[in-house]
Amino acid sequence: MSLSFFEVASLIIALIAFGFAALLYNWVKKRPSSNERIAEVGKLIRNGANTFLKKEYTTLAKFVGVAAVIIFIFLPAPIWSEKAEISKNLLMAVSYICGTIFSAIAGKIGIEIATIANIKSAEAAKSGISPSFLAAFRGGAVMGMAVVGSSLLGVTLVWLLTNDATTLLGFSFGASSLALFAKAGGGIFTKTADVSADLVGKVELGIPEDDPRNPAVIADNVGDNVGDVAGMGADLFDSNVASMSAALVMATALDTVAEGEMNTSMVFCYAAIGLLSSIIGVAGAKMGKKGSPTRALNNSTYITTLIFAVLSAAATYFFDFEWRIWGASTIGLVVGTIIGIASDYFTDDSKPPVHNVAKASESGPAFTILSGFSYGLLSTLPSMIGIGVSALAAYKLCAPLGEATGNETEYALFGIAMAAVGMLSIVGMIISNDAYGPIVDNARGLAEMGNLGDDVLEITDQLDSAGNTVKAITKGFAIGAAGLTVISLLGAFITEVNLAAAEKGLGTILTGFDVMNPTVFFGLLAGAAIPAVFSAMLILGVDRNAQRMVAEIHRQFKEIVGLKEGKPGVNPEYDKCISIATVGAIKELIPAGLFAIISTVVVGFIGGVEAIGGFIAGNIVSGLLLSLLMSNSGGLWDNSKKYVESGNNGGKGSVAHKAAVVGDTVGDPFKDTAGPSINTQITVVSLVSSLMSSLFLEFNLFNLF
Amino acid sequence: MSLSFFEVASLIIALIAFGFAALLYNWVKKRPSSNERIAEVGKLIRNGANTFLKKEYTTLAKFVGVAAVIIFIFLPAPIWSEKAEISKNLLMAVSYICGTIFSAIAGKIGIEIATIANIKSAEAAKSGISPSFLAAFRGGAVMGMAVVGSSLLGVTLVWLLTNDATTLLGFSFGASSLALFAKAGGGIFTKTADVSADLVGKVELGIPEDDPRNPAVIADNVGDNVGDVAGMGADLFDSNVASMSAALVMATALDTVAEGEMNTSMVFCYAAIGLLSSIIGVAGAKMGKKGSPTRALNNSTYITTLIFAVLSAAATYFFDFEWRIWGASTIGLVVGTIIGIASDYFTDDSKPPVHNVAKASESGPAFTILSGFSYGLLSTLPSMIGIGVSALAAYKLCAPLGEATGNETEYALFGIAMAAVGMLSIVGMIISNDAYGPIVDNARGLAEMGNLGDDVLEITDQLDSAGNTVKAITKGFAIGAAGLTVISLLGAFITEVNLAAAEKGLGTILTGFDVMNPTVFFGLLAGAAIPAVFSAMLILGVDRNAQRMVAEIHRQFKEIVGLKEGKPGVNPEYDKCISIATVGAIKELIPAGLFAIISTVVVGFIGGVEAIGGFIAGNIVSGLLLSLLMSNSGGLWDNSKKYVESGNNGGKGSVAHKAAVVGDTVGDPFKDTAGPSINTQITVVSLVSSLMSSLFLEFNLFNLF
Repeated sequence: MSLSFFEVASLIIALIAFGFAALLYNWVKKRPSSNERIAEVGKLIRNGANTFLKKEYTTLAKFVGVAAVIIFIFLPAPIWSEKAEISKNLLMAVSYICGTIFSAIAGKIGIEIATIANIKSAEAAKSGISPSFLAAFRGGAVMGMAVVGSSLLGVTLVWLLTNDATTLLGFSFGASSLALFAKAGGGIFTKTADVSADLVGKVELGIPEDDPRNPAVIADNVGDNVGDVAGMGADLFDSNVASMSAALVMATALDTVAEGEMNTSMVFCYAAIGLLSSIIGVAGAKMGKKGSPTRALNNSTYITTLIFAVLSAAATYFFDFEWRIWGASTIGLVVGTIIGIASDYFTDDSKPPVHNVAKASESGPAFTILSGFSYGLLSTLPSMIGIGVSALAAYKLCAPLGEATGNETEYALFGIAMAAVGMLSIVGMIISNDAYGPIVDNARGLAEMGNLGDDVLEITDQLDSAGNTVKAITKGFAIGAAGLTVISLLGAFITEVNLAAAEKGLGTILTGFDVMNPTVFFGLLAGAAIPAVFSAMLILGVDRNAQRMVAEIHRQFKEIVGLKEGKPGVNPEYDKCISIATVGAIKELIPAGLFAIISTVVVGFIGGVEAIGGFIAGNIVSGLLLSLLMSNSGGLWDNSKKYVESGNNGGKGSVAHKAAVVGDTVGDPFKDTAGPSINTQITVVSLVSSLMSSLFLEFNLFNLF
Repeated sequence: MSLSFFEVASLIIALIAFGFAALLYNWVKKRPSSNERIAEVGKLIRNGANTFLKKEYTTLAKFVGVAAVIIFIFLPAPIWSEKAEISKNLLMAVSYICGTIFSAIAGKIGIEIATIANIKSAEAAKSGISPSFLAAFRGGAVMGMAVVGSSLLGVTLVWLLTNDATTLLGFSFGASSLALFAKAGGGIFTKTADVSADLVGKVELGIPEDDPRNPAVIADNVGDNVGDVAGMGADLFDSNVASMSAALVMATALDTVAEGEMNTSMVFCYAAIGLLSSIIGVAGAKMGKKGSPTRALNNSTYITTLIFAVLSAAATYFFDFEWRIWGASTIGLVVGTIIGIASDYFTDDSKPPVHNVAKASESGPAFTILSGFSYGLLSTLPSMIGIGVSALAAYKLCAPLGEATGNETEYALFGIAMAAVGMLSIVGMIISNDAYGPIVDNARGLAEMGNLGDDVLEITDQLDSAGNTVKAITKGFAIGAAGLTVISLLGAFITEVNLAAAEKGLGTILTGFDVMNPTVFFGLLAGAAIPAVFSAMLILGVDRNAQRMVAEIHRQFKEIVGLKEGKPGVNPEYDKCISIATVGAIKELIPAGLFAIISTVVVGFIGGVEAIGGFIAGNIVSGLLLSLLMSNSGGLWDNSKKYVESGNNGGKGSVAHKAAVVGDTVGDPFKDTAGPSINTQITVVSLVSSLMSSLFLEFNLFNLF
């Protein structure tokens, strides 16, 4: 194990991130809080979240155990085969388990800080918007630093200890598979509670959001934490690890040819600089007394982007890296921003789409759905083109690097991987922004339940709305990066297949995937159907679960005397709702996750490596389309509802408002359950494929004919 | 011009179809009708439909004129280039115009018979379900025979007169481009009226469907004719022509090598047998006195399928055709049936999805939307897999035919084209079933407005519901066939490009489209976004237009004294609503259609032939996904509403009913505007690409670098 400068630097910056996270954590914890009711409710939320997390992780531990045994038996080669080395299989299984543990810890840290920051932010709102903003933002930043720090630490450690790209894919698969379930489970939990609380509370009874009489209100707040904090943390941990792993797989292959460490060094260097930029961006983030929270969040993102571009250019100059690779990563960063801005256009409440959907709502819910869905469809165009252009530009830019050695394709794919790394370089900042959302959402609930008054509620509402808008931008980054990562993983897949083929003396058998090859085309169509079915399973899960919870809320309002009237001392049974959401989510998350993994395995064993190539491509195409559609239409409906509630198109209680609430309810599982789970699903499919490539090559039904 | 046996046979069978259509027409016309009110309303519908058609065709004539000039200048080669022959360009332009005229005539014939059959079917219902069914079915069959007869006639004539596959593509492009606009325009018209009538009538005022007080009720009935009859006729005319053309393009290339006419003969022979089978199937269709109309329609389809399989096998044996090609076309037919059955499962009101959506509706409209959308997503899986498998099987089955001559790929692609021909062989029957739907829908409206009583309404309701279910099956055929046709057109595109390249002395430059090629990948992502944007434009068109019409209906109820109360002698101004639907549809149909054509041209001139290959593949994948999703979820919502209305989950007026009506309204433009327009859009994109292949090869931005 030899330590290069860049690996050491990565470890150090990861540790700095942890230190910075600890500082922020203490700062948040020291904010004053005095309201007893808030403390009480806050504790309920915290306990609910921890209970769910414990149950979820217990269930997943069994899954991970089984998966680890299967991995040990089959990967990288079946233990009974000649070329198998038991130690390698063991390493792969351990690496997988480590990936899941790192991911779980990232989620746990997020819950830990978010359930403190929500209280602090609510109470800070008493003294103004600026301190309230800062408490929430820095709380989010603890999560951001922890997630990115641990992903950089994890990847660097696995790399140093094994120096093997395939094992790294195992680590990445661990992170992805956990993220797949955590995102699905958290997403089902949060939307079950949110949808049910809104439906009975706002629509049927006409009581305000976060009214303490509503039995589902605590479950709703717990949901924000387990879905939007823990789930999202696992998701971006996974994206970050996957993009670094894909880049390292390509870089290793190139370094072997060039007999140096230039390319792997670049990956670590850029990732470390990204984290450093995020640290600086977070430290500098603030909001003027009269400023807008949206602007404060977006400005921090833009500043971080700029810092990364400058620092990475400096490093490229200083260490004599390839400028073309720098160009690729900068393209990724710029395109990520463009995708974010495009998403923002379709969801921002000062732009035409939100106004048009609010206007359409005056004619009833069907028009809310039709117009919002249509804008969601339209919103896919700029992002799809953006991702296509960035892949194309990165490819063309980096291919010439391989001219001398005859490996243009490898350099080109490395360029695409580095575009993904570039897009995710500022992920620390992105997570900080993203975790800010559920924290202020919770703070709003606590302020309502703690009776902090209308002035405070106005502040928390403003902070909450900013969280929604910013989410659109960060989701753009996550989706775009997943697309690019998976393209480069497709390159990794080809490399793995050819290595396996060479071992069997078959030579290079795969150079690409021709859509005119009917096996590839079959894979393409099958792969395109997977994200559709996967999303449907999640949405139906929320649907079923919410119906159960609605029945429970109805029961409580009927049976608990004095609850509806708000008689002092009469409390709903919050824990019953939390328990329904928990049990339901745990039950529903397994089938959808398993479906994604098993369908890949089935297609691989039927159609072999060519079908898998098409399968991954179809998966990317339809996955990007559906996730952009769902995330953006969901955000659009949410903000249209808020727009109407702020007094437009008839305001609260009007026909438009009722219709907009229906749109928001439809959008909830779109944007917070299905939409953001799809990019994890895409990553999982491509990692399973890469890991099992040699098995698919050897054993498949089409080979028999 | 030499006439082969099969070409003569095709012409004769086409003429028999016309004769049979005339017989059926007279039979329908002779059915008794006596009710004056029905005659009066029937006339209004007829005039409304003819007015719309006239305006639509006048607008499109200008478009066709411009397009014909452009085609004359540029295709097959720019008139200023060395290799250009003015006569060929002229032939291409004339062929294009003929395609549009044939398509327009098919639509016009459909309107002509449908607006008679609706009256006859309504009046026949007085004497029972069986005669009413027969009047509607035979009316639909006139349309079916006319469309398939004219497509077979048109293709055969163009083929005989020019003997040139590229000119045939020009004819096909004419049919497709008119279908694109007719389907979009008719779809926007019909759903504008349907949605507005339901919204104000059923939801706001609680008056029954087809109540004569509703100012939009005639427009709604006109819409059934211009959208579901004329539009659908143009659509299936186009699919049929495109599948035959694609097969003939491949067959010609193969016959040149083999120096015979075997393969082209097969195409004509199978198409003629398909029409013959449909004639027999239509002639034999009937319904027992106590029978179910759904079963009667489905049985006729299955019987036709069987007749085709047997007759085509006999022809294959008798004329010594290749059995493998017969196998491919039978695979297409079988898979079409399977796709239909799968779609049926998701939309039939005796199956779980409809029941579950009805149940979910009890919790409000958001759950109706979420569950219906999810089932729509799930429904894509069997069809996508089915299309993939049929392409794969046809390919593998037919490739060995080329072993001796070294053109396996060409035979394989011909096999895929013949699978599409097989899938569409029974299209005469399919159109008969499909046109039956709007006729009985109209009959229901006429029975209501003519006060024929509850017994008659019960019969027409039963016939109407059967129309909905059967639609799901026929749409499955249309979508599946479009998928297969476009795959084989992709093969035609490669052939055209290589021919053009050979002329420039470049040799074979294209053998396929590798998704790892970033230009192809860019095309793939861009192509996938097109159906999304195209659908969004259509749905937003309906949305905007319906808002205008809702305002007009509100105005009439407010300003016309006694209308709401149903005072005798007070009539709404039906023509105002018809006019709004007409003007709006004409205005909205052009941008969406142009978008599909222009985006193809832009991508071609930017990325060249490789980008176009990816573009078409992405277009197929996302087009199939979205059209299946929208068609099936729309059908599901419609039938769930009907299921609730028939007394389940609370029945009419319940919470579930209100929610189900919202679902139905959302589903209307899904299933009747956007969903079924997408397969035409896919075909247009691939025809534009094939026709412009040599231009894209010569002039593109990427070539400059």
